[in-house]
Amino acid sequence: MGQQDFIAVDWGTTNRRAYRIRAGAVIDSVQDALGVTAVPAGGFEQEVARLREALGDAPMLLAGMVGSNRGWMDAGYVPTPATLEQLSAAMVAPMEGVRIIPGVRHVAEGRGDVMRGEEVQLLGAISAGLAPPDALLCQPGTHCKWAWMRDGAIARFVTAMTGEMFALLRKHALIGQEMTGEVMPGDAFAEGVRDGARGDLLASLFGVRPASLLGLRAQADAAAYVSGLLIGADCAAHAGKGIVHLLADPALGALYACAIEQLGGRAERIDSHAAFIAGATRLWENLT
Amino acid sequence: MGQQDFIAVDWGTTNRRAYRIRAGAVIDSVQDALGVTAVPAGGFEQEVARLREALGDAPMLLAGMVGSNRGWMDAGYVPTPATLEQLSAAMVAPMEGVRIIPGVRHVAEGRGDVMRGEEVQLLGAISAGLAPPDALLCQPGTHCKWAWMRDGAIARFVTAMTGEMFALLRKHALIGQEMTGEVMPGDAFAEGVRDGARGDLLASLFGVRPASLLGLRAQADAAAYVSGLLIGADCAAHAGKGIVHLLADPALGALYACAIEQLGGRAERIDSHAAFIAGATRLWENLT
Repeated sequence: MGQQDFIAVDWGTTNRRAYRIRAGAVIDSVQDALGVTAVPAGGFEQEVARLREALGDAPMLLAGMVGSNRGWMDAGYVPTPATLEQLSAAMVAPMEGVRIIPGVRHVAEGRGDVMRGEEVQLLGAISAGLAPPDALLCQPGTHCKWAWMRDGAIARFVTAMTGEMFALLRKHALIGQEMTGEVMPGDAFAEGVRDGARGDLLASLFGVRPASLLGLRAQADAAAYVSGLLIGADCAAHAGKGIVHLLADPALGALYACAIEQLGGRAERIDSHAAFIAGATRLWENLT
Repeated sequence: MGQQDFIAVDWGTTNRRAYRIRAGAVIDSVQDALGVTAVPAGGFEQEVARLREALGDAPMLLAGMVGSNRGWMDAGYVPTPATLEQLSAAMVAPMEGVRIIPGVRHVAEGRGDVMRGEEVQLLGAISAGLAPPDALLCQPGTHCKWAWMRDGAIARFVTAMTGEMFALLRKHALIGQEMTGEVMPGDAFAEGVRDGARGDLLASLFGVRPASLLGLRAQADAAAYVSGLLIGADCAAHAGKGIVHLLADPALGALYACAIEQLGGRAERIDSHAAFIAGATRLWENLT
């Protein structure tokens, strides 16, 4: 059971990471920019062959946007509450020896949300004991996921466009001209978190330029302040006063941890890489 | 007193409107795209001469971004509470026969905001009796101004980047692909207002694409929904349950009026053109 090597691929829109896994441990891996959008129509079989050249022949489990209607084959979504067993049962096989993991959808009160790829980390974190079976998990990023786990299942979740909004503002907004400084979890970030939690984001964002004009904030602090505003708004809406288990890279994890604690919650960091490997391994074991 | 003709110019970043005014009435006007950014350094005297060729020789009052550090001459800001008398007293004269009206700044609790041009409409609306001396006025647009008037003065104000955010999202965000439909004050707009008022804007915005993917909302409704989200968030943060006096063009005024009334307030429309002429006339009378 599960002792055969397999290859797990976290295949996103713009990036791809593939791991050769033996008995729950990574024995080899590759990472590149061949995300789903970089693969031409009909090109996935060849990409699979190339990954096997790099990592050795083995059956493959694919997670992420590769299973969307913009990827190789639409693997659909399983509904909440979602478990690893349901994901295993709903996998699709675009070719012999390759399975694609479905995403998860949550619909309540007429509102809907979807994830594709994050579910492996979330459920893997629980199955590996990195977070308890009833917990709030957060995956910061371009699209920040907040997932409420109950009895080890993804009970509900919501996504905020926090990272995408920061990038949009810096690149295209009038206040983007001000956002040239470094983003660090210091005073300007904390001021942003405080203002972001007030729930008047559109006005707080406009205020960035007057603050420079009127000498109320150094322009070098504008980017950190805006980051604080967005992360503060995100955390105020979702984090609550309990523990948030963070699955994030160190820099973004530090910002979210600061915001969560400033707003009265507690942050605990989880190794998101370990969570993905644990989730993929459990999914593989369910199959074999 | 004030019986001599004068020319009032609302000279913004990208547009310009000039009016020849006699005894409080417009007798001629021109409008073009020669905003401040279209005038080369050192070119303002020539532009003034051209406006006088079009409208006849007369002293000129200039309002708007022409008085900023990116315009002809920085006319500074008068602090809140701001009155027409203070604006008159603080005008600057870049050349004989031309005065530039300063802007207004508001600073409280470490936060600051500025306006430049809007103050003439706001104070003009009160001086012409279009709104009472204690009132909340709103000027929707790229940067939506909310101004609380007390005893006829601008007591405090706040600006939200509502219109700029809508344009940013439509042009540059991932959800922009969905935002192809018309924006009308119908059901999708109302749904957006309701969700925007919940105070979870970053998640509500992300939800636009899942709503299409999961068949919860027609894609044709996405733009109206996003407009509702942003205007709903703006109005929920600022409008309150009383009367809001709206200075807006008909289309945007209709959207704001819907949102304000949906959220339990009352909207009254004011003719923003008449308000500007009244404000400029009163400023001119103060000078002469």
